[in-house]
Amino acid sequence: MRIYDIIKKKRDNYELSKAEIDFFIEKYCEGEVTDYQASALLMAIYLNKMNKQETAYLTEAMMNSGDVIDLSGIKGVKVDKHSTGGVGDKTTIALAPLVAACGAPVAKMSGRGLGHTGGTLDKLEAIPGFCIEMQADKFIESVNKHNIAVCGQTASIAVADKKMYALRDVTATVDNISLIAASIMCKKLASGANAILLDVKTGDGAFMKTLDDSFDLAKAMVDIGSEMNRETIGIITDMDEPLGFAVGNSLEIIEAIETLKGNGPKDFVVLCETLGAYMLVLSKTVNSFDEGIQRIRESIKSGDALDKLRVFIENQGGDKKIVDDYSLLPKASKIVEIKASKSGFISKIEAEEVGVSAMILGAGRETKEDELDLSAGIVLNKKVGDYVEKGDTLAFMHFNKEEKLQQAKERLVDAYEIVKEKVEPKRLVYGVVTKDEIKKF
Amino acid sequence: MRIYDIIKKKRDNYELSKAEIDFFIEKYCEGEVTDYQASALLMAIYLNKMNKQETAYLTEAMMNSGDVIDLSGIKGVKVDKHSTGGVGDKTTIALAPLVAACGAPVAKMSGRGLGHTGGTLDKLEAIPGFCIEMQADKFIESVNKHNIAVCGQTASIAVADKKMYALRDVTATVDNISLIAASIMCKKLASGANAILLDVKTGDGAFMKTLDDSFDLAKAMVDIGSEMNRETIGIITDMDEPLGFAVGNSLEIIEAIETLKGNGPKDFVVLCETLGAYMLVLSKTVNSFDEGIQRIRESIKSGDALDKLRVFIENQGGDKKIVDDYSLLPKASKIVEIKASKSGFISKIEAEEVGVSAMILGAGRETKEDELDLSAGIVLNKKVGDYVEKGDTLAFMHFNKEEKLQQAKERLVDAYEIVKEKVEPKRLVYGVVTKDEIKKF
Repeated sequence: MRIYDIIKKKRDNYELSKAEIDFFIEKYCEGEVTDYQASALLMAIYLNKMNKQETAYLTEAMMNSGDVIDLSGIKGVKVDKHSTGGVGDKTTIALAPLVAACGAPVAKMSGRGLGHTGGTLDKLEAIPGFCIEMQADKFIESVNKHNIAVCGQTASIAVADKKMYALRDVTATVDNISLIAASIMCKKLASGANAILLDVKTGDGAFMKTLDDSFDLAKAMVDIGSEMNRETIGIITDMDEPLGFAVGNSLEIIEAIETLKGNGPKDFVVLCETLGAYMLVLSKTVNSFDEGIQRIRESIKSGDALDKLRVFIENQGGDKKIVDDYSLLPKASKIVEIKASKSGFISKIEAEEVGVSAMILGAGRETKEDELDLSAGIVLNKKVGDYVEKGDTLAFMHFNKEEKLQQAKERLVDAYEIVKEKVEPKRLVYGVVTKDEIKKF
Repeated sequence: MRIYDIIKKKRDNYELSKAEIDFFIEKYCEGEVTDYQASALLMAIYLNKMNKQETAYLTEAMMNSGDVIDLSGIKGVKVDKHSTGGVGDKTTIALAPLVAACGAPVAKMSGRGLGHTGGTLDKLEAIPGFCIEMQADKFIESVNKHNIAVCGQTASIAVADKKMYALRDVTATVDNISLIAASIMCKKLASGANAILLDVKTGDGAFMKTLDDSFDLAKAMVDIGSEMNRETIGIITDMDEPLGFAVGNSLEIIEAIETLKGNGPKDFVVLCETLGAYMLVLSKTVNSFDEGIQRIRESIKSGDALDKLRVFIENQGGDKKIVDDYSLLPKASKIVEIKASKSGFISKIEAEEVGVSAMILGAGRETKEDELDLSAGIVLNKKVGDYVEKGDTLAFMHFNKEEKLQQAKERLVDAYEIVKEKVEPKRLVYGVVTKDEIKKF
């Protein structure tokens, strides 16, 4: 087998075989297939596309390029939740204790954030003492004992993905559905879950800007999951405006806790209930989506979910007192209000601009080496559909570095659009994709 | 400007600007654009194609990536002839003295052959003492004095082409019309000619296997020439069977000389007359194609062309006595006849198989490092359309290395197809492409 012939075959729009895809990934990891041959093949894949079968083969080859975690030591059906990422996405922090409190095991491996805002690991590290590094046996023991543990992904998972992503990033071959789907799913599959719930974000602040692309990506990932015998569901949710009100690591921890106390922002509560209910269904904890919703709501009402959060934090070395005393979390030294420049209905809060503004304040990384300011960020005061009078507060900016304020403020102000006509609030869930069905709401 | 954006633009099927193409070629030569970015862009170009304007810009950028030869010291209109290459193509050896004898200046830079058979330089080196290396002033002086000089292309011509061709060769991005046309034309343009005549081969032994592809390539090159203000004509000629009878360096020199003596193979004579007439037209030596044909024929009849060959050889240090005594040329120690296995009409002599057979005998290089056996090769005894009786001689194999004979023989025998029904001889010229017209015969 020669990589030249594989490139030529995909260039000429033929379907690649499992053996050819395995050869490519294996030899690429070994360095025998060069970067320039890989990038030619990736461009051919980008332009001529891969079918469902090829995409599944690619995902499997990438999964096998590194460690594959064995979670069989954990009792029950392990469900992993993955979000394609967005601004203000603190979902795991609230969702993991919610689902665990309802009796389903949550064994989650997360990544760090590169982009506008921090990832789940960054957010958790805003909790004093919280440790995201865990040995495998302690991880499994924690889930068996408490139903919950969240740790960092090891570097030795899906090695091919890391190498290939870096190459795609500089050769304009990132945004191809098959390549994106394979990149996400190979890591999820290597993380050992039995079932996978995908939160595919759509809109301005998401990787997928249009609804069609988002459904396509969800479908591609669900197809991979079912080819690999993992029950997989994809939910398409809004990321046109930021999720909830808080954007920034410490600020998002507070909002997640408030949600478990029953005071969450409406959109974020709907997301947690929806995703939570599907996770309970996938883990066979409940028999129906509606039963799942009920159980999630009860676990908030009863305080079980909040208790589970305390156990979760304590088990990973964190200070559980933060749940009741937010002053123990990193706190910005300055807060500035952003006011409405005119009266009217908010028709747009561009998630990406809000994310970039928060990043400038220190909440996210511009390069891998950047240190985060865990206290920095933005708290929205209004959402799309709200009416504001000129001078009303639109948002609060939390920060320590005065010199960054002006630039961040400009970006944030630019994110808003206020119009005269009444505007409907954004809906949160656009559809659900399962193996057999694509439901659009 | 960023190479990432240029790749993305071509990936999304937009037209690249002159500035973008210049940036790519310049930064690629400097090493700032990496091989993996170049190969991604080349695959995007391969699949999304380049238009006429982009192809001309690419050619110009590649031309400017190395030395551009100044032939203004030579009087008259300098016409360069280029063949896309084939089996038994000894055209320059006969054509250069023919055209020079008619009064047009021939200042030709040639390449070495990689593939089935040697290039023009290899063939000329079969002449004892002949030197293909020449200083620029001696080259110009020779053409001014004798109307003829042929030397090797310097390594510093079209530097980008060499680098890019090596990359295309291992990333399955060779056979794209724009990239092929740019690669050929950038070297021709850098060689300083005022007008260019292209002999685009078509058929089994040619780079372009089909007539359509051959016309497309000719059109692409003629378009580049006219964009660059060089009058350019493309002639599409047969390379389905080998050209003439002789394949192999020393053997082809003899056939070229015989042609100047008036004893050339029919197809090769037609090719020399056609190309010669167009060269005389392009150089303004004659006023019409028909007048050109007349002048070429006269120069053979009068012996002027043969005299010019003697002058040419002597001027470059070679032994002109070879013109009258072929025993002074490299001579193989063994000759074996290939006989017809049945009676009938020859319907096919696959040029590529004959070329490979000759290469195995030592006439061509398999790798750049291979040493040629200048005496080795094949002399056909029959051509397509000829009738043979079983046992008639089809060809003679000239060789020194006995151990290669069996393999070479099998390839040669496989090249023939003999059928019962009468077969017409191959036509030689299929069409002419000029700036304003595509004529198919």
